[in-house]
Amino acid sequence: VIAVPSDFERVAILGTGLIGGSFALALRERAPGAHIVGWDRPEVLAAARGRRTIDEGTTDLPTALRGADLVYLALPIGTTLDALPEVARHANAGALVTDSCSTKAVICHTAQGCFAGPARFLGGHPMAGREAGGIENAAAGIFHGAKYALISEERDPDERVGRFAGLVRAMGAVPLWLDAETHDWAAALVSHLPQLLSVALGSVLRSQQEAESGLPLALAGPGLRDALRLAGSPYDIWRDVCITNRDNLRRALDRIAQALDHLRNHLASHELQEEFAAANEVYKILREMK
Amino acid sequence: VIAVPSDFERVAILGTGLIGGSFALALRERAPGAHIVGWDRPEVLAAARGRRTIDEGTTDLPTALRGADLVYLALPIGTTLDALPEVARHANAGALVTDSCSTKAVICHTAQGCFAGPARFLGGHPMAGREAGGIENAAAGIFHGAKYALISEERDPDERVGRFAGLVRAMGAVPLWLDAETHDWAAALVSHLPQLLSVALGSVLRSQQEAESGLPLALAGPGLRDALRLAGSPYDIWRDVCITNRDNLRRALDRIAQALDHLRNHLASHELQEEFAAANEVYKILREMK
Repeated sequence: VIAVPSDFERVAILGTGLIGGSFALALRERAPGAHIVGWDRPEVLAAARGRRTIDEGTTDLPTALRGADLVYLALPIGTTLDALPEVARHANAGALVTDSCSTKAVICHTAQGCFAGPARFLGGHPMAGREAGGIENAAAGIFHGAKYALISEERDPDERVGRFAGLVRAMGAVPLWLDAETHDWAAALVSHLPQLLSVALGSVLRSQQEAESGLPLALAGPGLRDALRLAGSPYDIWRDVCITNRDNLRRALDRIAQALDHLRNHLASHELQEEFAAANEVYKILREMK
Repeated sequence: VIAVPSDFERVAILGTGLIGGSFALALRERAPGAHIVGWDRPEVLAAARGRRTIDEGTTDLPTALRGADLVYLALPIGTTLDALPEVARHANAGALVTDSCSTKAVICHTAQGCFAGPARFLGGHPMAGREAGGIENAAAGIFHGAKYALISEERDPDERVGRFAGLVRAMGAVPLWLDAETHDWAAALVSHLPQLLSVALGSVLRSQQEAESGLPLALAGPGLRDALRLAGSPYDIWRDVCITNRDNLRRALDRIAQALDHLRNHLASHELQEEFAAANEVYKILREMK
């Protein structure tokens, strides 16, 4: 582990659960000199302090933001939207404020309306999560090899953006520069749609599950366990994703409905070669990515 | 590893790929005295001999079956259906003949029409597979902890059935006794439907993939990789599954289409709690199963 100067000396982490806690742990490894202030509910702060992720904790937002040159929001989408105006009001003039929400258009649009002063907002989305949340599952390693979407351009002239991208890279993540709309459609396809497919499959299986025989789940193999890893994720997280990315998700669900209908109508033919070949290709791309 | 007497002294394995090869390896561990004859194409037999899974190999079916008291069919569904009449004709009078196909109604119905003599047919389906087939991926361990569907009743009076179930148990698998129709509906839900969902998702993602940006897949995280593990499976295997289980699969696809439509219509509401809770519960059951 080589420490790199992040130049961020005082970091406020708003929300010290899985993502905020993991970011703090990764920051500790890469910029051991940084002073980390956590903002959350008292019991979450106590747990975060217990894992030494934060140096101090507060439930008062202006106190958390005071003097921070990096503000990292790791909150649910709805809470982030609610907090943005106050964060913008109290953020240090030189601060970079960034978030970690799974949808970006609504967040970045709202931030645009709040951040009129010298503090800079940068939309972010680390593609690193686990089906089990909370500080107890936090780990610096979750960023390692993960894509980290940043809603700007690599040649953003604001040096704070370059510094943050450097920090993300030092944590082992791979910055991916794109605009909010492109992000939200891509995220709908590779993350939100697979989540809803898991939920749909899970709810169909649940409805068919028989208490006495344990079937159909009693017959399940490891393939289903992998296919349904996402089914463990709680609605709390996904409600806001569904709401703020609903147009893209509807479009994605329409595509899947068409694809499933096509499969259904050609089950007894020998004509699904093309669909399987496309899926095999996607499988290969995903295996080669990491 | 404790060897158990399997009482099967001469075992014919028809098809020495992933499942047949793995069965041979597991048999070697549990019944080292058994003599294993493989039947397959010459190049597959050469590879099987190279991995020491078989004692001898032949491309002649009657030769493979001669004197075998256990005949293990590990062939694709279509090939199994084609082979059953000849297997029945040449099988030893005291032989137990069993298969490993993913659908059971068509297989068992065909077998019923062929096995009029003293040789006994027992439909079987080990819920153990890998997305990559072939003898090179064979391993005794794939049966460990796996469910092994047997199309009969635990109190089947034929002692050969009891002996085979004992062998399956000795290999670390868990026999699950059920009738062919119950099996095929459960398998449609826990195995064939998830496979088609993977293919549908894979083909939608492939159709949206842009060469220049690499999006949407460039944004994919580990969740998608797990969700699409099944997408690596080749059509060769699944074509026969789709054909021989099409009525159950249509029914299962109709349920999924309804579930997805419900999700689509309630994205912007806060009313998907129930569907996520059902999926969370299925996730928990699957995690507790092993």
